[in-house]
Amino acid sequence: MKKPKIVVIGGGTGTFVVLSGLKDKPVELTAVISMMDSGGSNRVLRDEFGLLPTSDIRQCLVALAQDSGDREILRQLFTYRFHQGVGISGMTFGNLFMAALSDIYKDQVKALEVVQKLLHTKGKILPVTLDDVHLVARYENGYQVVGEHYIDEPRHDGKLKIVEIETIPKAKIYPPARKAILEADLIILGPGDLYTSLFPNLIVEGVREAIKKSKAKKIFVMNLATKYGQTFGFKASDFISELEKYLGKKVIDFVLINSNQKIPKSILWRYKQEKAQLVEDNLKSSYFKIIRCDLLLPIEIKKVAGDGLKRSILRHDSKKLAKEILKLL
Amino acid sequence: MKKPKIVVIGGGTGTFVVLSGLKDKPVELTAVISMMDSGGSNRVLRDEFGLLPTSDIRQCLVALAQDSGDREILRQLFTYRFHQGVGISGMTFGNLFMAALSDIYKDQVKALEVVQKLLHTKGKILPVTLDDVHLVARYENGYQVVGEHYIDEPRHDGKLKIVEIETIPKAKIYPPARKAILEADLIILGPGDLYTSLFPNLIVEGVREAIKKSKAKKIFVMNLATKYGQTFGFKASDFISELEKYLGKKVIDFVLINSNQKIPKSILWRYKQEKAQLVEDNLKSSYFKIIRCDLLLPIEIKKVAGDGLKRSILRHDSKKLAKEILKLL
Repeated sequence: MKKPKIVVIGGGTGTFVVLSGLKDKPVELTAVISMMDSGGSNRVLRDEFGLLPTSDIRQCLVALAQDSGDREILRQLFTYRFHQGVGISGMTFGNLFMAALSDIYKDQVKALEVVQKLLHTKGKILPVTLDDVHLVARYENGYQVVGEHYIDEPRHDGKLKIVEIETIPKAKIYPPARKAILEADLIILGPGDLYTSLFPNLIVEGVREAIKKSKAKKIFVMNLATKYGQTFGFKASDFISELEKYLGKKVIDFVLINSNQKIPKSILWRYKQEKAQLVEDNLKSSYFKIIRCDLLLPIEIKKVAGDGLKRSILRHDSKKLAKEILKLL
Repeated sequence: MKKPKIVVIGGGTGTFVVLSGLKDKPVELTAVISMMDSGGSNRVLRDEFGLLPTSDIRQCLVALAQDSGDREILRQLFTYRFHQGVGISGMTFGNLFMAALSDIYKDQVKALEVVQKLLHTKGKILPVTLDDVHLVARYENGYQVVGEHYIDEPRHDGKLKIVEIETIPKAKIYPPARKAILEADLIILGPGDLYTSLFPNLIVEGVREAIKKSKAKKIFVMNLATKYGQTFGFKASDFISELEKYLGKKVIDFVLINSNQKIPKSILWRYKQEKAQLVEDNLKSSYFKIIRCDLLLPIEIKKVAGDGLKRSILRHDSKKLAKEILKLL
């Protein structure tokens, strides 16, 4: 029997969780990944090496890499962030790995293939576009911000709504990504930051059309929490209407939404500090089917060696998520 | 039948050539490597990461790494030198790889083991010492220079003879290196820079004693050329008397020396520019056996991606060298 084909569209931690859950399942997995990640060490890579951003790709590589035997070490190395050394501190090993490979091959697509082979990834990672573009967000007060990093960590009032995002210049879909979307049996959108992970894929010319044309079942995984600077005050229905704005109406078939509300007070307090809150489920029956189920990860804070970055600690459980997703095949 | 045990003592390019030649032969290969390499990006690693120097080790790793299949890529990456990026430019990927691993494991010996596993090295690499020491050279005019890098690329008159080298503080042999030397069937010293590659091993407490005590046959491979700053004006007999100073008399059994004098004029001209010259074979019969044979590599200049370092281009041929070495078993 042929394995069902699943395409995950996104970038960032949400996609990491989805991919981690599905990678050992009997499916043919493809990740289509946003390429507008311009922050932190990626900005250095783009400015000084002229490379496409690699943080989202790196996360996907880690999610799909073989996690046993000596490949596990490479996987660990890919998550390693240098915390010493002028000019190196803050850079991730994985990004430097990709930069070196891209220079050796003078070809980033080839470099991406090679690193997937080295890591024995279970599934394929495709950039949504190869074009070198910048992400631009326009806010309700007329502000315009250029660069994924500045949208993700705004220096303005984070309560401002984003009216529109686009890329400058326009980006075209990478043909293998289009092919994967068209041939998919299931397409998963989200969870993740709407304006910096998910929608940057949808605004690439050809993506929306491919998703619509594809006979795949389309699932949107609702975020667990709002994010200051992007979705402040959003309820579930706001996520859906924003998605419809970028994807079109009546495109998705299912919305997966967490129904487990048993969240430790310490986490709620922490979210309050970050001006975030749990997404309120105010969804009403519509053209899509709503699947309410427990998708929450038992809380655990993990610190990776050399990685001093702050991590939010409310997460989808990759196993629970994968289980619900596979039911829809 | 048990494989004969060969121990190569050194560091640097000469050792690279010996290891490359022997790695596919039916022998049990161990490289005992000098740890006083303080130059270039190693200095950064030691200063900012508090790590042992890794350039010599990196070269040995590359020499012994599997050079086919997808491990070949890791091997290539290990030789890659970043040439872009403030703070990264000039650093080798291999050194950053080792730095990240050492931080993950908080243990450099473990990191060295892990990287050998990843690269599927054919043979073992052992640091001669784990002590963090500095190399000091004293010159005939009373000068004292601290640091392998400054001895290797002197800022003084390179015709000055080195009267003595030592480490500050004293270094002790790494016990597994001692064990390997004692159990060896064959020990190879050189070729390579006397005062920055070979002798830094011999001045480590316990090394000389272990070599003398070992029942192995001991071979010294004579350098092809002199080096300004170290062996200016040396003839073959001068190399031997310096070796005797650091190793003792009547320790080596064989001296392998190149007899092929067909060297292109362009290379001789280049050596003249660098105030170097071919080593004149003035050896007379002594307690050791002199083996004169063609050990020269057909000349080829190779540039590695991302590696802008100047390379001298007169080399021992790893195959010819291995063939002659194996005859002595």
